[in-house]
Amino acid sequence: MSRLADIMKEKDAFYRNNYLSGISIDCVVFGYHEKSLKILLLKMKGAKKWGLPGGFVRKDLPIQEAASQILEERTGAKNIYLHQFKAFGNLNRSEDLYEGMSKELWFNDRFVSLGYYSLVNFKNVSPVVDDMSDECEWRDINDLPPLMMDHEQIFDEALIQLRRDLNYKPVGLNLLPEKFTMSELQKLYEIILDKELNRGNFYRKMTRYGILNKLDEIRKGGAHKSPNLYTFDLETYNKALENGLQESW
Amino acid sequence: MSRLADIMKEKDAFYRNNYLSGISIDCVVFGYHEKSLKILLLKMKGAKKWGLPGGFVRKDLPIQEAASQILEERTGAKNIYLHQFKAFGNLNRSEDLYEGMSKELWFNDRFVSLGYYSLVNFKNVSPVVDDMSDECEWRDINDLPPLMMDHEQIFDEALIQLRRDLNYKPVGLNLLPEKFTMSELQKLYEIILDKELNRGNFYRKMTRYGILNKLDEIRKGGAHKSPNLYTFDLETYNKALENGLQESW
Repeated sequence: MSRLADIMKEKDAFYRNNYLSGISIDCVVFGYHEKSLKILLLKMKGAKKWGLPGGFVRKDLPIQEAASQILEERTGAKNIYLHQFKAFGNLNRSEDLYEGMSKELWFNDRFVSLGYYSLVNFKNVSPVVDDMSDECEWRDINDLPPLMMDHEQIFDEALIQLRRDLNYKPVGLNLLPEKFTMSELQKLYEIILDKELNRGNFYRKMTRYGILNKLDEIRKGGAHKSPNLYTFDLETYNKALENGLQESW
Repeated sequence: MSRLADIMKEKDAFYRNNYLSGISIDCVVFGYHEKSLKILLLKMKGAKKWGLPGGFVRKDLPIQEAASQILEERTGAKNIYLHQFKAFGNLNRSEDLYEGMSKELWFNDRFVSLGYYSLVNFKNVSPVVDDMSDECEWRDINDLPPLMMDHEQIFDEALIQLRRDLNYKPVGLNLLPEKFTMSELQKLYEIILDKELNRGNFYRKMTRYGILNKLDEIRKGGAHKSPNLYTFDLETYNKALENGLQESW
């Protein structure tokens, strides 16, 4: 019996008493650092594959708060932006993880998982290992290892959703540092959309929205001409997102 | 005790044995008829308010198939287009429906509900009353009665999602009859977006996408000049939706 099975047996009664049965939460936690879009992955004890961080819903919590709590425990960060995008409920979705374990275990029942994606400021997050996992770390979305269960599908769908949400959710605000250059913003869009964008068009569209404040500061120390720094104008940004930033990229 | 409570008591063991506990499905079924966007509503036995059609997930079915089955039973139509858009899991969301009923009932546990919206061809659907409901009928979205539980929230979010999905999902294809006029298509967009659109702009954008076939037929019998009929060109339409119809309206 693997160590994971031991832990699950030990915790069985606790989860049965305090958590909703048959419902789990899986989180695709996006962070952006050094021109690379990353997600948090963890390895459960004794598992061969990596997986998305997740957890369960306490009987006394709304699902959104349960998800917030899971993320806070995993990242050490509060008030993380998160968005529920889809529930995953195929049969046997956890088969490869719990193979050989008793069907009577609370953990080994059929679970429908609520998929959330979250956007975090990379610098505010310190990935935390818990008593069911050995490792927790950032991995570039273009260099992911094979994932357990249906987590590859959950990630794929989260990325599609994030792409569509660029026009409706404060994606840039939550992933970039407070001050950023136009080319840093463009690079983020290019990675999420998985295509190169024309620099002039991007500048014009972004400027036309009126959602950026150009600061009297420049980014120093680069090889090129020092670029201007920007922040989001929260009032116009939030207003624009209500109706959607209606440009195509 | 209301009649609904009697039925729930009678069915308790059956549901406990055959269905996932704590997970329900609620469907916002959109249909379009005579320039009016409607949804299916039903009244459960003894209930004061109307509600969305819904049901539960059989232990041997993926959630998507469970939703299909629920819709088929309720509408008599097969292969209905449906899209899962959000899970609803606040505490006490079913309080007003089950007030006064035993907490031990399977139906009166805490349920997280998976919200689906579906798009049906109005003419193919005959709303069906089942043994838990007295009435089932179409209601115009601009003239809805108060809804039970959190169903108003579920409807509101479905409509927002449908609005955003106009560019990504075959909304027109599923709601309109096979042949339609440009002004019928425009009217559908106007209702979903809740705003008037400029006729010339709409015509130009729709034509530019190349997703419509103009037929050698006209709609006869109207008061005005007989307008041309169109169908969707399925190949280009589906291809365009993959990337999203990137125009703002």
